[in-house]
Amino acid sequence: MRNPPALEQLVEALRCLPGVGPKSALRMAYYLLQRDRKGAGLLAQSLDQALQVVSHCGLCNNFSEQEVCPLCTSPARDHSLLCIVEMPSDLMMLEQTQSYNGMYFVLMGRLSPLDGIGPRDIHLDKLLKRAQDGEVEEVILATNYTVEGEATAHYVSELLRARGLKVSRIARGLPMGGEIEHVDSGTLAQAMLERRNVR
Amino acid sequence: MRNPPALEQLVEALRCLPGVGPKSALRMAYYLLQRDRKGAGLLAQSLDQALQVVSHCGLCNNFSEQEVCPLCTSPARDHSLLCIVEMPSDLMMLEQTQSYNGMYFVLMGRLSPLDGIGPRDIHLDKLLKRAQDGEVEEVILATNYTVEGEATAHYVSELLRARGLKVSRIARGLPMGGEIEHVDSGTLAQAMLERRNVR
Ligand SMILES: [Zn+2]
Ligand SMILES: [Zn+2]
Repeated sequence: MRNPPALEQLVEALRCLPGVGPKSALRMAYYLLQRDRKGAGLLAQSLDQALQVVSHCGLCNNFSEQEVCPLCTSPARDHSLLCIVEMPSDLMMLEQTQSYNGMYFVLMGRLSPLDGIGPRDIHLDKLLKRAQDGEVEEVILATNYTVEGEATAHYVSELLRARGLKVSRIARGLPMGGEIEHVDSGTLAQAMLERRNVR
Repeated sequence: MRNPPALEQLVEALRCLPGVGPKSALRMAYYLLQRDRKGAGLLAQSLDQALQVVSHCGLCNNFSEQEVCPLCTSPARDHSLLCIVEMPSDLMMLEQTQSYNGMYFVLMGRLSPLDGIGPRDIHLDKLLKRAQDGEVEEVILATNYTVEGEATAHYVSELLRARGLKVSRIARGLPMGGEIEHVDSGTLAQAMLERRNVR
């Protein structure tokens, strides 16, 4: 005695979600079919839509529905500064501090050899091309002050300085092991203002 | 600065999943778009397919792709016994014990006034009709031995006994507060064999 095939298939498919094991996938499938068919339909539609229209900005590598995102095309921003962050949520946190008016590059990850995430996975080719466009004068490393964020900052700064770029790191206003996404806005603004050159 | 609309929409849609808050919905959306677009596509497809073909068996109320499920139409089963369970997973656990060869009714929930789940939500009309088909001679209550499962068993037994049906309860082989889904197969078989009449 098993569940109907289409239900088993749905359970299997739900397991592609991070942090969802067999038990919670089953619970989700039951819930959707039993109590929220409307939500399930909307989810299917939203997945299809996002897959169709969301890609990466050709310049900053952030998620974008345009080839180049609105931030990258904005004439109001300072194109001589390029701030490197791990994730889109970090970019959004920095924007909220209103302490920075330059450009961004989103790595979409961090170096993490244990998880098999190497230089190729964080789009360093694209970053090097972006940083050497002739307009960028300073690259600001705003990766997390975690072990992996620090290693990433170190690796990236070596690459950029070897190409003659000025590189700085946001100040350690963040607590040790702290993640940008979870820090308060004032601390983060301070860290941005007190960024230091990488020697 | 916000995420692209289709991404925001996906995050919102993911929140229909039980146990998924704004933070983990965002994490899931990033993950799907960044690392598992194939899985996301398959998930959308599986949701659509399940919504289209999975409904409830007209007799036992379990999920089914047919109007009446294979178990309910099986001539090899004892149609004089009707076992009431909370969820499809409970039915499957009981089937695995191979200690029972009768029919089932799946409530798809349990009475839970605090969560706003009352008699109408657990399909008691359908159950009463099913139990009074003239073939059923004994109804076995196999709801969990939790507070809610016990309350459900009590409520349902009152209804059934008022209609002259013989009602029994699987034995408390399960530990207090135990859930059928998590008990070992031997204990569960014992509880089935030692079911007692409800007085
Ligand atoms: Zn961009
Ligand atoms: Zn059935």
